[in-house]
Amino acid sequence: MAKTLDEQLAVSGKIKLADYDSRATTGFDGGKDDSAKSLTLLGEELSDLQERLYANGDAKISDRKVLLLLQGMDTSGKGGIIRHAAGLVDPLGLTITSFKKPTQEELKHDFLWRIEKGLPAPGKIGVFDRSQYEDVLIARVRQLAEPQEIERRYDAINEFEKKFVESGGVVIKCFLHIHSDDQKERLAARLEDPAKHWKYNPNDVNERMLWDDYQRAYEIAIERCSTEWAPWHLIPSGRKWYRNWAVAALLAEKLRGLNLEWPPANFDVDAEKARLANT
Amino acid sequence: MAKTLDEQLAVSGKIKLADYDSRATTGFDGGKDDSAKSLTLLGEELSDLQERLYANGDAKISDRKVLLLLQGMDTSGKGGIIRHAAGLVDPLGLTITSFKKPTQEELKHDFLWRIEKGLPAPGKIGVFDRSQYEDVLIARVRQLAEPQEIERRYDAINEFEKKFVESGGVVIKCFLHIHSDDQKERLAARLEDPAKHWKYNPNDVNERMLWDDYQRAYEIAIERCSTEWAPWHLIPSGRKWYRNWAVAALLAEKLRGLNLEWPPANFDVDAEKARLANT
Repeated sequence: MAKTLDEQLAVSGKIKLADYDSRATTGFDGGKDDSAKSLTLLGEELSDLQERLYANGDAKISDRKVLLLLQGMDTSGKGGIIRHAAGLVDPLGLTITSFKKPTQEELKHDFLWRIEKGLPAPGKIGVFDRSQYEDVLIARVRQLAEPQEIERRYDAINEFEKKFVESGGVVIKCFLHIHSDDQKERLAARLEDPAKHWKYNPNDVNERMLWDDYQRAYEIAIERCSTEWAPWHLIPSGRKWYRNWAVAALLAEKLRGLNLEWPPANFDVDAEKARLANT
Repeated sequence: MAKTLDEQLAVSGKIKLADYDSRATTGFDGGKDDSAKSLTLLGEELSDLQERLYANGDAKISDRKVLLLLQGMDTSGKGGIIRHAAGLVDPLGLTITSFKKPTQEELKHDFLWRIEKGLPAPGKIGVFDRSQYEDVLIARVRQLAEPQEIERRYDAINEFEKKFVESGGVVIKCFLHIHSDDQKERLAARLEDPAKHWKYNPNDVNERMLWDDYQRAYEIAIERCSTEWAPWHLIPSGRKWYRNWAVAALLAEKLRGLNLEWPPANFDVDAEKARLANT
């Protein structure tokens, strides 16, 4: 039996990111020219699936909700996925949360405090642009917390995600995998194009100088937090078209798996037809 | 000189809604078959315009923001516009707020309290699915407030919108105009299709029975609150394709009018190129 995309892209245990090809097109039958049409078709299906999810939440007959969590180095494509994959569904059904440097208020609480506030309600698809993982990634690389606190966080994240899943949530964690050369090329392109200067921050190069440390931090996060209930997926993101397709396809696969029916009428259909006819 | 769509669709003063054709296609050169292509082209332009707005907000060099406010009778197409017009831009740049029956908490405050919380931040396009106008529409028709309180609200709304405009905001108020027969047909279609039963509520027919009262309440709201800084637009919404195109085109026209440039680099571009090359 053919493997699902979920199975093909899932990663767990001790892995070496350097062993993965950032330009792979795992599970996609064709090349860039075929991807636009595939994405359009996927968009139509996603639109229907998302509406079913929303309808069930709206009718309060289901607690299902989906969290699409995006992590990756600068330029790996978190924004591109929000625009081109999440953007395929009705924006009313989305809640997008971008996690930036924590505010003073946020720092007063446990690191999961602000994360919990961003979780999607029943019927919604939540998108995390960065996430709780920053607290074991940049926090580890830049030593923003004590080692024992970082250790505690891996377990806390696993518990947190388990609780969300037990409450009807589906978690889709995507690590957008690019090669260091991909990033160099993309940052250079931003510097060449005045319409992209606003996306560039000199700090991006500072972070880039710690590339190997970040890759290691991601490997540890995957080892510690790719669980049965919330596995990590490695999305080869060297080709933008594949990256967008893969995340959209993964989202569709998960939504399809929920087997959501349209909510039944909670009123007498014939009586309402008669009432309407009389107006 | 050709009138802008803004000018063609703006309404103010004493008007009779019954005089307006819900199936008009004001400002659109062609029919339904031409609209899909037009909407696609408009989507590309909107996407660029929205990104400029977002970039300026992100760079903190502009306080511009846009509020798209949608009002109309049940089935007039507020949801359809969010999906098909607002859905053309990057969802990260949107903040959508649906105003339902006020909660106990909301009722403790002035009616504009919850509205203010939904206003878009600089760089964002806010969409209001219903709005402050419910407080002079259903509130008037269903007598949910004293007459003098309703009177006070028209002025309060004008002041509120003026303040938003003075702070860099653009307000696009759209009344989605349908004929009573359009609504009957659309409600009947919802009752015929089990995939649409979740959208139907028996209360929709109760409200429909007060059709004339609601039309009158809209006429008064337009008379009192179509101001120079925040005019009302009447969007003929008997044809869904025109309705979606008109709102998208109005939004594009307003964004175009902001003449937003890409934010200039706030760093030394050549120095950064050199730094990047060395990594």
